[in-house]
Amino acid sequence: MEPQFVSFDSVRAFEMASGVTGKALFGEGAMLNLVSLEPGALVPRHSHPHEQLGLVLRGSMTLMVEGEDHELREMDGYTLPGGVEHQGTAGAQGALVLDVFRPVREDYRKATGA
Amino acid sequence: MEPQFVSFDSVRAFEMASGVTGKALFGEGAMLNLVSLEPGALVPRHSHPHEQLGLVLRGSMTLMVEGEDHELREMDGYTLPGGVEHQGTAGAQGALVLDVFRPVREDYRKATGA
Repeated sequence: MEPQFVSFDSVRAFEMASGVTGKALFGEGAMLNLVSLEPGALVPRHSHPHEQLGLVLRGSMTLMVEGEDHELREMDGYTLPGGVEHQGTAGAQGALVLDVFRPVREDYRKATGA
Repeated sequence: MEPQFVSFDSVRAFEMASGVTGKALFGEGAMLNLVSLEPGALVPRHSHPHEQLGLVLRGSMTLMVEGEDHELREMDGYTLPGGVEHQGTAGAQGALVLDVFRPVREDYRKATGA
């Protein structure tokens, strides 16, 4: 795989849930997904075998992990091992979050048409 | 490994180079490193077997990859396969960059005392 240099402003967004869009950049064994959530938008409870790490870049989000709420603000980060149930709800100002997945999410690759 | 929730504001920084500090969050097979570069600061040419992905959050950076310069601004991202020689130089306003490594950088773990 060749090095890639990408302006996220020009990456085409794909819909992840109502009011939630993602912009993906696929590496070899890991990927970035820049997630934009409208105020109050919900990523319903789900899990996946992929490890997930993330950083809130703007706004705030409530991340429910295994039934427990965690309030995350700008410059708060998190790590979730694979297989853990979680749900995200954007705060009143919405949120911009950078998610990282390992390995690459092939369902996202399909969703982006990449 | 348990889920982790961390405010990067309270993560202790470690020195990566002159004028360059990192704040690391270690997952299982991947990690985040929030890198702060003073204006003009240099991360000298190096390589590592780890895959690297990143996003410029603030400021700008020149990323030299295999001898070629790439000018990166806010919301520009990149992926570098393992083993590729690269060097980073912050722009006139400095830079804040989120780097992702796969697998975890054990040298960073040692540097942070984690």
